[in-house]
Order: sequence, then C-alpha cells, then structure tokens
Amino acid sequence: MKNKYIIGIDLGGTYLKIALFDSSLRFKEKKFFSTSEFSQPESLIDGIAEAVFEIIKENKLKNSDILGAGLGLPGPIDVKNGVAHFFPNIPGWIDVPVAKILRKKTGLEVFIDNDANLMCLAEFRMGSAKGAKNAVCLTLGTGVGGGLIIEGKLYRGSSYAAGEIGHMPINLKGRPCNCGGFACLESYIGNRRIATLVKKVFKKDIPLDEVSRMAAKNNSKAIRVWEDVGAKLGVALVSVVNLLNPDRIVIGGGVANAGRVLFSKIEEVIITRAMVVQAAKVKVFKAKLGNDAGMLGGALLVKEHSGGL
Amino acid sequence: MKNKYIIGIDLGGTYLKIALFDSSLRFKEKKFFSTSEFSQPESLIDGIAEAVFEIIKENKLKNSDILGAGLGLPGPIDVKNGVAHFFPNIPGWIDVPVAKILRKKTGLEVFIDNDANLMCLAEFRMGSAKGAKNAVCLTLGTGVGGGLIIEGKLYRGSSYAAGEIGHMPINLKGRPCNCGGFACLESYIGNRRIATLVKKVFKKDIPLDEVSRMAAKNNSKAIRVWEDVGAKLGVALVSVVNLLNPDRIVIGGGVANAGRVLFSKIEEVIITRAMVVQAAKVKVFKAKLGNDAGMLGGALLVKEHSGGL
Repeated sequence: MKNKYIIGIDLGGTYLKIALFDSSLRFKEKKFFSTSEFSQPESLIDGIAEAVFEIIKENKLKNSDILGAGLGLPGPIDVKNGVAHFFPNIPGWIDVPVAKILRKKTGLEVFIDNDANLMCLAEFRMGSAKGAKNAVCLTLGTGVGGGLIIEGKLYRGSSYAAGEIGHMPINLKGRPCNCGGFACLESYIGNRRIATLVKKVFKKDIPLDEVSRMAAKNNSKAIRVWEDVGAKLGVALVSVVNLLNPDRIVIGGGVANAGRVLFSKIEEVIITRAMVVQAAKVKVFKAKLGNDAGMLGGALLVKEHSGGL
Repeated sequence: MKNKYIIGIDLGGTYLKIALFDSSLRFKEKKFFSTSEFSQPESLIDGIAEAVFEIIKENKLKNSDILGAGLGLPGPIDVKNGVAHFFPNIPGWIDVPVAKILRKKTGLEVFIDNDANLMCLAEFRMGSAKGAKNAVCLTLGTGVGGGLIIEGKLYRGSSYAAGEIGHMPINLKGRPCNCGGFACLESYIGNRRIATLVKKVFKKDIPLDEVSRMAAKNNSKAIRVWEDVGAKLGVALVSVVNLLNPDRIVIGGGVANAGRVLFSKIEEVIITRAMVVQAAKVKVFKAKLGNDAGMLGGALLVKEHSGGL
C-alpha cells in the first residue's frame, strides 16, 4: 500500500475536480473540468471515467499503482452500496449505482460519499477540525451543506443522510426551501438568497466576493449583509451547539471568505443564545483546505475503506 | 458480579426516587421521597445517602452486596469527574462533586449523569428505543430534556452537555428561556407554557392530564392545545431529523400522555418539513418505561461503568 497512489474526485454543480495523490496525500496533479457539457448521468459518469484514465495515463501509471478512487457527490448517498439517491441541483439522477458503474468502467476500487461529508473528513484529518473530538463542518455556497464528526469519526446517520445543517428550520414560518421544507437555514443564507439581500441593500447586483472585500474596508452596507447572514447562521448553530455540544465548528465555502464580520456575528449569537456549558466549549474556525477539501476527502475515503486510517 | 444488587436513583424537582435492582435489573424495591424538605445541596445529598442506607438495610444487604449506585440529576453533569455543574430548577448548586461526596458517605461506587441521558439509556436498552442504531429521546415536563444514542451508544458531547433538544431555538425571535437564550423549544412547550395556552383556550385552568383525557374524547379545544404543542415540537424534531438522520425518536414525560393527537401532529410536521430520505427512516414512539426510566438508567449507568454492558 505504501507506494500506491490515490485518486480524489469532487463533483460540484460547476466543476468536476480530480486529483492524483501519493500515499501521504500530497497532490501529484490536479485537474478541473466544466460539468456543463454533461447533461445526462451517463455522460457525466463517462466524463469522470475519462478524467480518471487521463490522470493515470499522464502520470505514466497503471491501474495496479492506484489504491482506489474516492468521489464526493452533491446529494444524499447510500455509502454502503455506492448509490447516489438524487442531487438537489443536478436533475436526472435517481438512485444511480455510481460506484458500481465506475468500478466497471475504470477497473479501480471506487468509493462515493456526500461532498460535505468528505469536506468534513478532510478538515478533520488535515484542516481546521484536526484534533477535535466532536466537530461540525459547514460549506456555504448555493446550497448549505454540513458534515459531523462524532467521537472522532465521520457520522453518517441511519440512512447516510446526516449533517444537513442547511435544512434545519430556523423559524416556525418562512419561505419554501428546495428540499421541500420551509424556513430552512439554506432558504435564508444560500448564495442566491444573499444575492437578493445584496440587491436590496445596495439597490444593485454586486458579486458576493466584492461584498466581502467591501466589508473588510468597513463599508456599512456590506457589514449589514454579512451580519444578517451571521445572525441567521448563528441561530442554526445555537441549535447544533445545544444539541451536540461539539468542541469545534468549521465553516467553509465561498461565503466563509466574508471574514471577521461574519465570524464575529456568529460567535455573538452563540454566546448570547446557546447554553453556558456548551457555548464555553466550542470554537468556530474558518475551513483551511478551501477548494481542495473535496478531493482530499475523496482520497481519505479510499484510505478509510482500505484500513489506512 | 452475578449476584450483586444495583441501586438506581432519580432526582427530580419534586421527588427523589430510589430503587434496588437485582443483577438482571429487576426491581426488588422502589421508594419515593419528597425533595421539598431538602433546601441545601448538603441536606439533599445527606437525604440521598440516608435513602441508600435505608434501602440496603431494609433488604438485609451489606455494602459488599451492592455493585454500585447510579444517580440521575436534573442539569449538566461532568460525568467523568462526577460533578454537577448546576440545576436550572434547583437553586444553590454550583459545581458540586456529588459522586465523590456520596462515595464517601455511603462507601459505595457512585456514578452520576444527566437525568435525560439516563432516561435515554434506559429506553435504548429496555424500552422504545431498543434495537435502534441512532435514537433521540425526549422528556416533556416542566423542562424539555433530551438524550442521544449515536451508533448504539449514549452520546454525551465534548463537555457532557449534549442532547439539549429543549434549548434548540425554533424561531429567530421569541420569548426569553430559563437557559438564558430565547425562542427555545422549552419556552414554547414546557408545562408552564402549555398551562398558559390551556388557560387562553379554555378561559380557565385545567390540569394537563385532564386536557389529554378531553383530547382523547375529541374535545376540539383540547385537540387544538396538543396540535399546537405538536407543531412546535415537530419543528425542533425536523432540525434533529435532518441533522442526525436517526431511525428512532422516543418521547416521554407527562405530556407524552396527550396521545394520538400529539403524535399525529409531530409525524405530520416531520413528513411535511423534513427531507425525504431522513423522514422515511425515522419512527416516532412513546416512551415505554415511564417514571421508572430514570432509576433504570441509573442502574444501567453502574453496569456500563462496571463493564457489564
């Protein structure tokens, strides 16, 4: 096992990211593909298989040099059977046995999991949740994803669907959410919703990363936007903190770049509203691994299945 | 160990309940004491020690016949060091090393834990959560307590304070809660709050168990009360279901006697608002062990510490 390489893959709404790692999980190569050209599940899986062939070939490796491939997917996954139930933001997938198909196409061991779970696994092993006993990881983007580390292990729940922090209701009443529920955290702080808030506050469209830069320069309107996001997110985290009593919260995804104003507001809400013992124990950090987290998590998943963790 | 007895103790706001169990956790004796006579922590701990002496003596046993005593307390507990941090509804306790004091006074092995955790442990081993992999237990009373079974084990969190379902906010804004937060589930469905709702609906005070009987006879006002409670509790459970993806929810405490109308409403909210995969997996049951759960949980705690579980 020592000299074997591992492939980590992260499928998002925009990009398919694939990386070749050595056995110590150092990047040997990283490649991005646009997912827009793959309209059907079949063509997307073919695209993944081709990307795998390409990265193996370009690095002059053979299949026997590869320990396996780990793939993160944006939806609920039956981890045991390698089946993707559906993807909220990519239509056309219903109970696709992705792992089995990719195993057949590539001849490699293939493992799949939810992308937020893999981000959480990566942050726990190599990032901002390292050393935590119980950690909660979030990714803030178009969707609000989450993963849980419980007693030092990724916790997946009774049907591999745990960690959906974005779909915790934070209000008795509220707007409908993509998930079918309503008043979910994601319906308040998903990127599209923040963009709507930005338009309302600034009377025009401004990209969210620009709003982050403006907040860093003390623009009061930009600060108001991120304080509002932090206030909403804080309420969901009060629930999580009182329920799970974690020692670490790690926040990643584009919105985490909003910086100090966002994190200060989150901490303020936790201190104000969470119970004393729980609030005193938890530390809130920005995620460390950025866009690499998903690929690293995929590689860690292979290690986990191979008994290497 | 086979022939040893175990003592289980449950300290509530109204009663101190103590039981002697045989090694198979069958009740040999059960005694209730009023807690109202114990105004100070010292006198309450003395009272517990005396109750322990009494039950041992009356059953013609010696200390060496007792494997240990397990005690459930109504507040956050440092389980490892046997320290009770404080009790929300019993003033005067700050970081009292209860286990150490009781060990010294009784000469027995003493273990302590939060009462809702012990209720959950009992329901998991012997009650409505038996056979579950991941379970959420609630007790509905003056306070709303909770306990979590994660991967077949009682989960206590990073500072032994996990499971506080009663203090998950279910609204962005709302009334202040005893815990210092606001809009917590408990501030909507704690017994006192339900009593206020009953008075508003019926224009007079009616005991909650009477309201349950009236609901069973299709009284529309009584049904309205329990549907309101179920709607609020349901929202908190949607959060728990989407976050933890449990296979079982067990609801105990006096309010659980409200019956079908309460449970139907809870299930309706979960089906309406929780995510499809998670909602399909979870079953909601009434607790089975009633008032015995705390004492049984105390005895199970002793077994757990003695390697008997």
